[in-house]
Amino acid sequence: MTDIQGYKGVSYNLLSKSKVSIGDFIDVKTNNESIQGSLMPRYEYADDQHIVIKMSNGYNVGLRTKKIISIKLITKRSAPSFQPPKTPKLDPKLPKVAIIGTGGTIASRVDYRTGGVHPQFSTNELYAIVPEIGKYAQIHTEPLLNIYSEHINADHWNIIAEKTVKEITEGFDGIIIAHGTDTMGYTSAALSFALSNSPVPIILVGSQRSTDRPSSDAALNLIGAVASVTRIPFSGVYVAMHGSVNDSTVAIHRGTRVRKNHTSRRDAFQSIDISPVAFFKDEKVEVLTEDLPLKNSSLQFKARCQFEKDVALIKFYPSFNYKIIDHLVDSGYRGIVFEGTGLGHLGEDCYQSIDDAVKKGLLVGMTSQCIWGRVNLTVYDSGRDLLKIGVIPLGDMLPETALVKMMWALGNAQSGKEAEILMHENIAGEYLERSTFERRKKYEFI
Amino acid sequence: MTDIQGYKGVSYNLLSKSKVSIGDFIDVKTNNESIQGSLMPRYEYADDQHIVIKMSNGYNVGLRTKKIISIKLITKRSAPSFQPPKTPKLDPKLPKVAIIGTGGTIASRVDYRTGGVHPQFSTNELYAIVPEIGKYAQIHTEPLLNIYSEHINADHWNIIAEKTVKEITEGFDGIIIAHGTDTMGYTSAALSFALSNSPVPIILVGSQRSTDRPSSDAALNLIGAVASVTRIPFSGVYVAMHGSVNDSTVAIHRGTRVRKNHTSRRDAFQSIDISPVAFFKDEKVEVLTEDLPLKNSSLQFKARCQFEKDVALIKFYPSFNYKIIDHLVDSGYRGIVFEGTGLGHLGEDCYQSIDDAVKKGLLVGMTSQCIWGRVNLTVYDSGRDLLKIGVIPLGDMLPETALVKMMWALGNAQSGKEAEILMHENIAGEYLERSTFERRKKYEFI
Repeated sequence: MTDIQGYKGVSYNLLSKSKVSIGDFIDVKTNNESIQGSLMPRYEYADDQHIVIKMSNGYNVGLRTKKIISIKLITKRSAPSFQPPKTPKLDPKLPKVAIIGTGGTIASRVDYRTGGVHPQFSTNELYAIVPEIGKYAQIHTEPLLNIYSEHINADHWNIIAEKTVKEITEGFDGIIIAHGTDTMGYTSAALSFALSNSPVPIILVGSQRSTDRPSSDAALNLIGAVASVTRIPFSGVYVAMHGSVNDSTVAIHRGTRVRKNHTSRRDAFQSIDISPVAFFKDEKVEVLTEDLPLKNSSLQFKARCQFEKDVALIKFYPSFNYKIIDHLVDSGYRGIVFEGTGLGHLGEDCYQSIDDAVKKGLLVGMTSQCIWGRVNLTVYDSGRDLLKIGVIPLGDMLPETALVKMMWALGNAQSGKEAEILMHENIAGEYLERSTFERRKKYEFI
Repeated sequence: MTDIQGYKGVSYNLLSKSKVSIGDFIDVKTNNESIQGSLMPRYEYADDQHIVIKMSNGYNVGLRTKKIISIKLITKRSAPSFQPPKTPKLDPKLPKVAIIGTGGTIASRVDYRTGGVHPQFSTNELYAIVPEIGKYAQIHTEPLLNIYSEHINADHWNIIAEKTVKEITEGFDGIIIAHGTDTMGYTSAALSFALSNSPVPIILVGSQRSTDRPSSDAALNLIGAVASVTRIPFSGVYVAMHGSVNDSTVAIHRGTRVRKNHTSRRDAFQSIDISPVAFFKDEKVEVLTEDLPLKNSSLQFKARCQFEKDVALIKFYPSFNYKIIDHLVDSGYRGIVFEGTGLGHLGEDCYQSIDDAVKKGLLVGMTSQCIWGRVNLTVYDSGRDLLKIGVIPLGDMLPETALVKMMWALGNAQSGKEAEILMHENIAGEYLERSTFERRKKYEFI
């Protein structure tokens, strides 16, 4: 009996007749070519007019059934071998780095049997796949979660933060967190606030393309993260992702100033309004700033890992209905961060609802949906009206970072007033100090 | 009696004693300099430690009261003269262009008396201030609204669209709409759908800095808009704004693909995922594409100017509470556009609420908060689950454009089904045809 998950109709009949199964290495002849590869499963909504095989160069190809002349089995799928690779010999003088796995493309391989994505995360497996990391550090892996990052929420931030604290107290010289890219910017902001003043650097790393694809960015990003976590002299939380379209550079971004600005490109992550903190290229780490808190294991480090979930991020748009604000207030929310227009504006029919929210004790902050630049509520009377109501202008803080910060401030402060004071303080570079970094003339991809 | 609006405490006392009023041209001596200029009003939240004067180069300067040795009146503020400028001689062969005023920085001047911003919009005043526009067209101005664009909503889109139709039927060869920059991208999308197939081009123009500032972009943007509306051979709706940091280039962006990406820079507007349609520089219009619908006054033109207001744009974030979706459904909303993460994902605890929304007949569309790139709901099972529920994937449509399009589709279609079909059609370049434009290698500012 053949196992041809996901195929149906014409393609199902063709594969059944040929007696091949998912994962088999097969030869497919069409009227103008002959192609060898592993038969891949199809997803539920696929048509029945194609079969898909993965060629040895790593690419998948879809072949139209009506062009197919014959399908022949070359070798049956072999049972996966689970011979764990051996630990390589490591220099005991190398720094010790913990890699915490939370899920996402970086920590996964495609199972040819099911098409599913599986975690692949033992230390020895990592050494086997990316041996270069052994040059920079003695690695210890810690699988913690296995979640697509769109499903990661504030409870997971807490779990990741506490695990990181544990690894720091166990004496690791740097912490890497493998994470899905979808919400990596939110998690990096959360850890930046929870673990500010960490005695060692913490770097989140992800990949946009899975390790079974030739264009995967997983290996270089991981090497860049490991090299950088051992070389940069700073405390704090960072994100390591491709820094250019070619496969040569990893950019290290500050955790509160980074954003995923492209759905699919490998260099999707950008530092906003500043330069990255460092670049990894040709096995070297080039640090671009001197003005960040230095790492220091004797530093007084007090993690604050709580997050309040009843905080909303609201993007304003024309004809936005103020009743959404009323609903949040009535539902017991403790804070709202707006993405206003331009310098931080909202339609005037929202003012009354915001006034009510502030009077009921909610923190209300203002950021801009422009993403780049800073809000300024004193230029136009639209802004001055909001200031008068009690809206907190959040400077050049990213909207996503502002949301996370308000969740953190309300989660850890003893009172709303204390949380409001925290919103004005610069905890982890979320307010840009103009003198600290050379501001980039063009806010472009590198 | 002196008139020193906004000043208080120390600065009030100093100005009172000196017997000067807002708008007076004064000389201020400090312990190390002597500065002349007009006394400006202060806003409500200003401190009492500074006075502000506007120098003859247009810049405002704040002077610390404790450094001021003396303040002397040079000339009293003169009453404003309202001698309307004369109409210049115009070449009757030049194309006829209507400029519709809706408000915003482009159409305003600062009143030195109050610090307020006032409309300045007669045809002759425009010729007097920006005489260059007379080289390209015979101008007719039409003040329509005078609203900061953060207060513009779907009712105003309707008013602007209908006024534009009226001007087109009166035979103008091009229409310019002066508009505040905050929501100009939303309005340009609204007009793109309402007035698709317009027989003549329609260009929205704004400015980031008011005309009284030496760095104002108002004049060049207006000249670029007038020149382009007479020269580009296409139908459709566009946005004309500074195309570079220096004061030399105006970029013409397609109305459905443009976004304000910086709070304050003059080149804040960017075409997303494509190149601008044209550039104006050195009095020339360079058109960069050939593949847009040509303008044609004999074309069948049917405006569809209605917009449904009960549509929400919801940006997803970690710990987003699905009850916000339930609230919209219970409130009778007809559509929701999500800004998902990455390729178009949401947390799984939202699925049930979205399923309910779709079953109750709401249109639910998916875009990405990444801004650049396109959603793809078939790569991960997170996306496939949403497809199965009935979420409409919106390709590379901008979130803001997707919101406006859904408001328009629901406003003009006879049924929800017809609106859903419209969401899948490419009406005005909101779905990018990859072959049409050369895709830019870097998505950066020009």
